[in-house]
Amino acid sequence: MYFSKNTIENLDSRYRAHFINSLSGFKSANLIGTQDNQGHTNLAIVSSVFHLGAHPPLVGMIIRPHSVPRHTLENILETGFYTINHVNKTIYQQAHQTSARYDKAESEFIATGLEAEYLADFKAPYVKDSRLKYGVELKEHHHLEINGTELIIGEITAIHLDKHSIDNDGFVDIESLETVAVSGLDSYHTTERLARLAYAKK
Amino acid sequence: MYFSKNTIENLDSRYRAHFINSLSGFKSANLIGTQDNQGHTNLAIVSSVFHLGAHPPLVGMIIRPHSVPRHTLENILETGFYTINHVNKTIYQQAHQTSARYDKAESEFIATGLEAEYLADFKAPYVKDSRLKYGVELKEHHHLEINGTELIIGEITAIHLDKHSIDNDGFVDIESLETVAVSGLDSYHTTERLARLAYAKK
Repeated sequence: MYFSKNTIENLDSRYRAHFINSLSGFKSANLIGTQDNQGHTNLAIVSSVFHLGAHPPLVGMIIRPHSVPRHTLENILETGFYTINHVNKTIYQQAHQTSARYDKAESEFIATGLEAEYLADFKAPYVKDSRLKYGVELKEHHHLEINGTELIIGEITAIHLDKHSIDNDGFVDIESLETVAVSGLDSYHTTERLARLAYAKK
Repeated sequence: MYFSKNTIENLDSRYRAHFINSLSGFKSANLIGTQDNQGHTNLAIVSSVFHLGAHPPLVGMIIRPHSVPRHTLENILETGFYTINHVNKTIYQQAHQTSARYDKAESEFIATGLEAEYLADFKAPYVKDSRLKYGVELKEHHHLEINGTELIIGEITAIHLDKHSIDNDGFVDIESLETVAVSGLDSYHTTERLARLAYAKK
């Protein structure tokens, strides 16, 4: 089935949101933990976290300023710190619930029952029941004029995970941690490994 | 288990590459099809394609200029067009093989046996055996000084997929197309849906 540029432009906006959000492939499922300078916490699920580099260890994410994670964006710009917490099979429904439009004064930790924890003096809250989580320091943010989104780039400065999940070569078996994948706007998936493939040579 | 900033900095570089690449969560698996102005084709697997917006329909990806997909980057900048093709369970091993360091004059389509096809006059080659694929026009590229990577932003102008995979609301069941997910540098996964969750309300 073929959709031309003209067909895409004329799709109903809600239909197009579901459709276009499905095209990139499977996405990561992460909870972003933040707080403001007064210590009011915030938690938001995002599917736009992506690997940017290993040396220095950098991670990127996209936030739409008028979307639900706008409080997250405000807190990151205010404090410079945030946590990224893998969503797993046990907590994915609570994680999804953080996408409801809570007021800034309401903490999604309390509203959803996901417990906050503070680790190793890091200045943002982690999600206790996430089994792979890390602390990130804001390095750059870029306003993308093309559609008004913000690209947030941070450096990973603290990592917490189950020891047994790390292979000898540094690979983390996130499937063993029951980390979930997202497709489209609202579909959550567990995974089954096909294989780890050897470094490709000619 | 806790890794401090200092511990992370002192990891062996290959270990750190596997480790940090695992942290973002599950990633998309896509083949980028390009050609130069003389019609020499190129195909590269990337795990950095991400959704940027539905209106206009925009997709982003990160390319490291000195990595294997550098020929892809050169072709995109030369012609302004590329295709994004979901990697599925049937072709993931051939897809992975495109990451070998072929010379620019060698086409990964021929080297890996993945067949190229041209659809609806789009000026870049698609992967015939991909079941969800789309044509993209380059809109912007940003050099990210922080680590020398390039952010490529394009507009989706043509989409080809199996009709039966589209739900009534526009959601595409990419699991039914056997699209795979990636973790770390080299691990490929099929998925099993937990649920599609309703739009979250307070």
